[in-house]
Amino acid sequence: MNTPAPEPPDAARDLDAGLLSTVRAGTPAEALLGDAAWLRAMLDAEVALARSQARLGVIPQASADAIASVANKGRFDLVSLAVRAREAANPVVALVGDLTRAVAAEDPAAAEHVHFGSTSQDILDSAAMLVTARALDLVLKDLTRVGRALAALAAAHRDTPMAARTLTQHAVPTTFGLKAAGWMHAVGEAEDRLRSSRARLPVQLGGAAGTMAAYQEVAALNGAPGDALSALSLSAEFARELGLADPVLPWHTARIPVAGLGGDLALLAGSLGKFGLDVQNMVRTEVGEAAEPFVDGRGSSSAMPQKRNPVLSALLVSAGLQMPGYVSVLHQAMLAEDERPAGAWHAEWQPLREALRLAGGAAHTAAELAEGLTAAPGRMAENLTLTRGQVVAERLAVHLAAGMGKAEAKKHITRVAAEAMAGGGSFAEAAAADAVIGRHLSPEALAKLLDPTRYAGSAGELVDRALGHHRARTGECA
Amino acid sequence: MNTPAPEPPDAARDLDAGLLSTVRAGTPAEALLGDAAWLRAMLDAEVALARSQARLGVIPQASADAIASVANKGRFDLVSLAVRAREAANPVVALVGDLTRAVAAEDPAAAEHVHFGSTSQDILDSAAMLVTARALDLVLKDLTRVGRALAALAAAHRDTPMAARTLTQHAVPTTFGLKAAGWMHAVGEAEDRLRSSRARLPVQLGGAAGTMAAYQEVAALNGAPGDALSALSLSAEFARELGLADPVLPWHTARIPVAGLGGDLALLAGSLGKFGLDVQNMVRTEVGEAAEPFVDGRGSSSAMPQKRNPVLSALLVSAGLQMPGYVSVLHQAMLAEDERPAGAWHAEWQPLREALRLAGGAAHTAAELAEGLTAAPGRMAENLTLTRGQVVAERLAVHLAAGMGKAEAKKHITRVAAEAMAGGGSFAEAAAADAVIGRHLSPEALAKLLDPTRYAGSAGELVDRALGHHRARTGECA
Amino acid sequence: MNTPAPEPPDAARDLDAGLLSTVRAGTPAEALLGDAAWLRAMLDAEVALARSQARLGVIPQASADAIASVANKGRFDLVSLAVRAREAANPVVALVGDLTRAVAAEDPAAAEHVHFGSTSQDILDSAAMLVTARALDLVLKDLTRVGRALAALAAAHRDTPMAARTLTQHAVPTTFGLKAAGWMHAVGEAEDRLRSSRARLPVQLGGAAGTMAAYQEVAALNGAPGDALSALSLSAEFARELGLADPVLPWHTARIPVAGLGGDLALLAGSLGKFGLDVQNMVRTEVGEAAEPFVDGRGSSSAMPQKRNPVLSALLVSAGLQMPGYVSVLHQAMLAEDERPAGAWHAEWQPLREALRLAGGAAHTAAELAEGLTAAPGRMAENLTLTRGQVVAERLAVHLAAGMGKAEAKKHITRVAAEAMAGGGSFAEAAAADAVIGRHLSPEALAKLLDPTRYAGSAGELVDRALGHHRARTGECA
Amino acid sequence: MNTPAPEPPDAARDLDAGLLSTVRAGTPAEALLGDAAWLRAMLDAEVALARSQARLGVIPQASADAIASVANKGRFDLVSLAVRAREAANPVVALVGDLTRAVAAEDPAAAEHVHFGSTSQDILDSAAMLVTARALDLVLKDLTRVGRALAALAAAHRDTPMAARTLTQHAVPTTFGLKAAGWMHAVGEAEDRLRSSRARLPVQLGGAAGTMAAYQEVAALNGAPGDALSALSLSAEFARELGLADPVLPWHTARIPVAGLGGDLALLAGSLGKFGLDVQNMVRTEVGEAAEPFVDGRGSSSAMPQKRNPVLSALLVSAGLQMPGYVSVLHQAMLAEDERPAGAWHAEWQPLREALRLAGGAAHTAAELAEGLTAAPGRMAENLTLTRGQVVAERLAVHLAAGMGKAEAKKHITRVAAEAMAGGGSFAEAAAADAVIGRHLSPEALAKLLDPTRYAGSAGELVDRALGHHRARTGECA
Repeated sequence: MNTPAPEPPDAARDLDAGLLSTVRAGTPAEALLGDAAWLRAMLDAEVALARSQARLGVIPQASADAIASVANKGRFDLVSLAVRAREAANPVVALVGDLTRAVAAEDPAAAEHVHFGSTSQDILDSAAMLVTARALDLVLKDLTRVGRALAALAAAHRDTPMAARTLTQHAVPTTFGLKAAGWMHAVGEAEDRLRSSRARLPVQLGGAAGTMAAYQEVAALNGAPGDALSALSLSAEFARELGLADPVLPWHTARIPVAGLGGDLALLAGSLGKFGLDVQNMVRTEVGEAAEPFVDGRGSSSAMPQKRNPVLSALLVSAGLQMPGYVSVLHQAMLAEDERPAGAWHAEWQPLREALRLAGGAAHTAAELAEGLTAAPGRMAENLTLTRGQVVAERLAVHLAAGMGKAEAKKHITRVAAEAMAGGGSFAEAAAADAVIGRHLSPEALAKLLDPTRYAGSAGELVDRALGHHRARTGECA
Repeated sequence: MNTPAPEPPDAARDLDAGLLSTVRAGTPAEALLGDAAWLRAMLDAEVALARSQARLGVIPQASADAIASVANKGRFDLVSLAVRAREAANPVVALVGDLTRAVAAEDPAAAEHVHFGSTSQDILDSAAMLVTARALDLVLKDLTRVGRALAALAAAHRDTPMAARTLTQHAVPTTFGLKAAGWMHAVGEAEDRLRSSRARLPVQLGGAAGTMAAYQEVAALNGAPGDALSALSLSAEFARELGLADPVLPWHTARIPVAGLGGDLALLAGSLGKFGLDVQNMVRTEVGEAAEPFVDGRGSSSAMPQKRNPVLSALLVSAGLQMPGYVSVLHQAMLAEDERPAGAWHAEWQPLREALRLAGGAAHTAAELAEGLTAAPGRMAENLTLTRGQVVAERLAVHLAAGMGKAEAKKHITRVAAEAMAGGGSFAEAAAADAVIGRHLSPEALAKLLDPTRYAGSAGELVDRALGHHRARTGECA
Repeated sequence: MNTPAPEPPDAARDLDAGLLSTVRAGTPAEALLGDAAWLRAMLDAEVALARSQARLGVIPQASADAIASVANKGRFDLVSLAVRAREAANPVVALVGDLTRAVAAEDPAAAEHVHFGSTSQDILDSAAMLVTARALDLVLKDLTRVGRALAALAAAHRDTPMAARTLTQHAVPTTFGLKAAGWMHAVGEAEDRLRSSRARLPVQLGGAAGTMAAYQEVAALNGAPGDALSALSLSAEFARELGLADPVLPWHTARIPVAGLGGDLALLAGSLGKFGLDVQNMVRTEVGEAAEPFVDGRGSSSAMPQKRNPVLSALLVSAGLQMPGYVSVLHQAMLAEDERPAGAWHAEWQPLREALRLAGGAAHTAAELAEGLTAAPGRMAENLTLTRGQVVAERLAVHLAAGMGKAEAKKHITRVAAEAMAGGGSFAEAAAADAVIGRHLSPEALAKLLDPTRYAGSAGELVDRALGHHRARTGECA
Repeated sequence: MNTPAPEPPDAARDLDAGLLSTVRAGTPAEALLGDAAWLRAMLDAEVALARSQARLGVIPQASADAIASVANKGRFDLVSLAVRAREAANPVVALVGDLTRAVAAEDPAAAEHVHFGSTSQDILDSAAMLVTARALDLVLKDLTRVGRALAALAAAHRDTPMAARTLTQHAVPTTFGLKAAGWMHAVGEAEDRLRSSRARLPVQLGGAAGTMAAYQEVAALNGAPGDALSALSLSAEFARELGLADPVLPWHTARIPVAGLGGDLALLAGSLGKFGLDVQNMVRTEVGEAAEPFVDGRGSSSAMPQKRNPVLSALLVSAGLQMPGYVSVLHQAMLAEDERPAGAWHAEWQPLREALRLAGGAAHTAAELAEGLTAAPGRMAENLTLTRGQVVAERLAVHLAAGMGKAEAKKHITRVAAEAMAGGGSFAEAAAADAVIGRHLSPEALAKLLDPTRYAGSAGELVDRALGHHRARTGECA
């Protein structure tokens, strides 16, 4: 077998069904972000424009009704639209043609009012914001679930001791509650930013090059009343129709609405990815401090019958790894020349959609992981004893320092620890047997100091503070 | 000559003097972002910690004073610190050693209280936020200048007609005032986000692994009063000392403070880069609608005596092109495992600093460009006639549509335009001679419609709106 | 209208039909890169594995035949596979289940030999390489067209003078032939790298964790002859079956085959994007030195009837802007821990596919652009006179320097140029009237020096050299 | 304390001494990549140009000698050059001024021949390639050390069993030798690509806009002999002087030499980062299968006396995380318009230098890590028993399948494994007690199958193959 090109699929139907993007395949947000959803949103934008113009007296209400009726029931051929988009470098020109023909078949007068005074970018940018709004509404719902579940974990494990690891090594004790509170708080911060981005998503309405001239011209020509002659009224009306914000200026080449959203999505993907990464380190065979929610057959391998792979966390990490690349394109596309760039605008669409898909998939996956995560306090306690006392060497150093000076104390303990490690012995025992230490601390005091379950510092207080903040943000009680 | 390794420079002094990063070389922000400034900030963090602990009764005021005195006057060897940083993967361990020795030489008791209960990341992260705060304060000042200058341009050229270009082609008329207002508004949005980020920059204070345990332990051991025993008090005090925010939780591995800042810097660099890119298109030899501020000798070439290259805009674009790469690293580094990651944290420092340098350089450069930019209304008017009327074909189409239907009108004008273009003739004349058009529009009406200086739509209104918004944001009058 | 979630599409069919990625919508490569094509390649990999094992005597030929027959004719539900992929974090586990069941229905004994001794990553990575090979074969064909067309342009316009622009300003004269030769040579270099990458694309065959243990175990258990017991034989056989290379080691976590390909695709997209960007600057309304191929209706606007937008070049630039982001993910994913990473591998699939789609679309678009690009030598000549002689100021400086010293000469010409510019006059006339210049150059000599069509340096020689290199590379004559 | 701007450092000396980029601080490559080294290389390029022109008879040898003498001994003020670079958007214009003045002070006639016929980009690009060549020569030396050390590890541990982990879980056994061979082979592939890039690094010599016109003009004016009149001769001579390649065409805006290098550096950083990441997972407190080389005091913490942090691997990972961002800028900068872009070229310099610094630092760090890495076969063996037999469940499944069918066998073992895990018991014992299994396998056969040290598949053979390939590549014997 060489590598003959396979028959092209009989339809484009299978171009991207999610096979290669497991984190979002089949999640609720996916359906809101497919090509059909974008087409729907473009049609919604055309309808909203017509309705706004009807309300302002620019076109008859009957035209708006006819346009809405055809747009809502009409069948448009996505694949054909995509292919014809090459002729204009965007899909709106072809869509306006199809829509106009379809309206003309039902109401020729109304067809005159399709896309009236408008331009491709007004429709596509407004549609992008509409699609984004719809997807973010779902994402935010999933993030509420994530926050609630992590808050519950933080509260339940407020005082569950475990080893904190820094640079892969046991450092000092912490609590699982503080770890969970850290995840909760970070995701909450990302959520807050997205929520505020959501509220600011603007319509686009600038006309051919941002002056709104044709909107004004058609209004004047059609004898619209005074108010309607200001294109600013139309923008306000259009925003109201679509449930989006009315921007100060058209933003054809001022892309903060898109690039800023990208940054917010990166914060979300990063925060959820960090959660996933931590879970991965906890479920390692040697660590075993947590388990992903058990679902029969999940995490199985095509080779190894014993495998229960942590799949949800792997999906979170995969999303966290991809997002910065997509977002960098959105940032790059801000360099948009003139009144409409020849490439930078066009470069945004696919990365924006993929970024939203990753966010939607990751939020949904994280909700499932947070709600089903099982902690293993027993293994946490066991692991905490692995270094046989070294995990609280910091504490011992603080106490010795009071007697023998900080530098001397640190040096001495470093030596005791190294010798215990080299000899394969227990640090706690070595410390107990050490004459220098004995001079400064009684055996009882030493034993108490070396108990790894009693050195969690302010962990509890911090959990309380984070939960209080969470309650204040969300109005929910954990 | 082969390529023998040159003698290593006698000192590291010239490792990076800005030779390869022209946008920021010698700008005010640069001095605040060099290694010396970071070292200064690390020392400031150590001093602030000591002062906070003194205020809470954890250490004697005399210790704090001695530490401050040595930190402020001490000479620390940057190159040695950098090299020794390899042993700990961060520079704080070596710095604490040097500082402790220097304090001990003056006040052995105070040396016991250096870095008391602390950890490297608390110092380095707090220093990073301090450096950032100082740099942003300068950036924001420059952005105020940018906003003011662009507002003045927008106001002065509210009604100066010029061609709007979309996909490189003349589209419809716009005004230079609207273009300048667009720059102003975008930069203002980026500035607002940075200002709010500035206000939220948090101190880091978590101790070895985020539980603040050693801070609490040393406080207890030293018989600090009740209040001081809560490490949360220390965090609040520390924040006050440094003029930074007190975070809900330590953020050793919850990196929104850094990654979110990265996103904001990307918006700034993108907005300033768009300004630069537009200026470049306006100064092209064939276009000539603007000129960068004239400075004798600037923009000269090593080859061509006639050259006056647009250098400020080139620097803005170069910054806009680099920033997304640096920011993508900050986003990526959010995947920070455990309680301190083994690499992700370390990956942030240099890209963060470079991102701040680019922002500082770009803001300073943009201020100079905005304040000195000269518009050439004459060339704008001339260029507007280049298409001999086609630039208002949209308007003609709207008017013809009223008589002959939209589709027919557009098709007809497209044909007239193509024939005029093919024959090398004027569109305006061809339209005047066209029988179909003549049936719908009188010669007078047609002439008026085809005047490219009378089709700016809502440009003036939009400029007013943007200026009003600018005044409301800044309290300034343009 | 608020923003109610629209009805989810009745099928996933429209998830991504290319609507948002115009550069590749409907291009030949697209069909080779959709989910169906990936599924096809995974099945091809399973079939090739079975055939290899049959050839080595590990399984009966009848089993291989049955597996091939079912795999080739079978209907597999892509959407269901994608959704079930979430349970294993990859789609192979579910696919193996479906395939096994389908084979069992026809030949229960053969079902025992499906995916025999194999692991998900062997199948998915081999499929990825197969998909890549098929797509690159198409890309390379299009690049041959690009090279041929650009070579023809370079040859035809070897001596067509035009202005070279540096930092947006006319610099010195060049030729359009040299410009076209530059595009040709850069695309050729990218093509060479891709061709060599294509030849090295390896199969993946490591078994569960890279030791090939189960492949060896099933061979031994099934009494395969000596040779077959070395899993290395199987790898060689498998590579032959798929027309791919046999790697030195399994590369489950050594991702140069993917990341290196990413780098090569970035070079291609950048080279084609540069071509597009140059065309955009040549077609600007004010410049008019080239035109994209004329296709009726192409480049039209939904608003402006006169518009003929340069769409092909916009698509090329849009691809060039996106590619670095996707490739950065592939580079990042090299940090793949252990014997199979929990996220990094999964992060590759979608960006790899998108990168290939962009490359396929851009190559196809570039072929059309290169074959249809029209140069306008008349406008080039006209523009060359725009600076009224300044474009050859460098040459004048060289000649004056011989008489009056380099520094003095440059300074003097700079002054003459500035004064001519300020007075709105011609540089050539000012130079002719200048006494200092007159002292060194006769009017005839000066006139000859200032002829912008006679200062193309080695442009012709360089075109010849590049064409010679092109012929040597491709065996084609331009 | 608020955040007053600190005093600017008294000199720029400390702008970047490596404090924030630990991976390269103080490494040999660092000294070759600082601003002083770039300045040196620019001067080397000017000298090589003069020498080439002297050899071709364009200028007197005495001029070349004078230029060389001044360039080699002269003191140039880096900080001043950097600041003045803002006026031309690149540092060459100011440097040529300084150099000309310095030469004029010694030999006024020679000053006429400084930068003769040249342009800034020829000097800066050639200098960049020279700096790159020098840095890569060092990198390649370190990579030879890495390869040698990893080959030794692979050979020594060819048969040392350890657990392979996939998605964080024990999968099947592998050997440490295969793991080391995988690192060696990947780094070797990256090295091969860099070596071939090194050999192709081209000089830049195009003159003002790529036509070499002024080089030709000065040659003609100075009565150079026939041969010298072809600027192509000059390019060949210049390449010889600098020990770089002679390109087919000037590459002012065809940036594969830079962008392609970027891709190669990404492969190196990724391969070394993967090595670091694997070491990190091996040194985790719970795993303990390896240790970084012991250096007294290294890996210490400012807080915890017991800490021996794995710092070398952390530095490798930090480099691997940063590189893709820098490289994405180099890829982006390929979109370089016209004959010299206004920003894209300028955006390359700093990211290119940082990328080389990361590569240099990482290669040096990896050499130290590879040479000093200690494996702990005892802990590997111990960990291999952690799953009490499950790590060879795949093998058992293969054998049972022969008797009871694949699907049934896998299902059955999955159940046995799950029950053993749930009951806290040993999988091996559960399997031994299982009636179904007993029906197919004798206790002896079962015990043998479940021995995790006897299921390494082709690991040994693969190690041999990789070592053979390494020997063939390097001519070294491991």
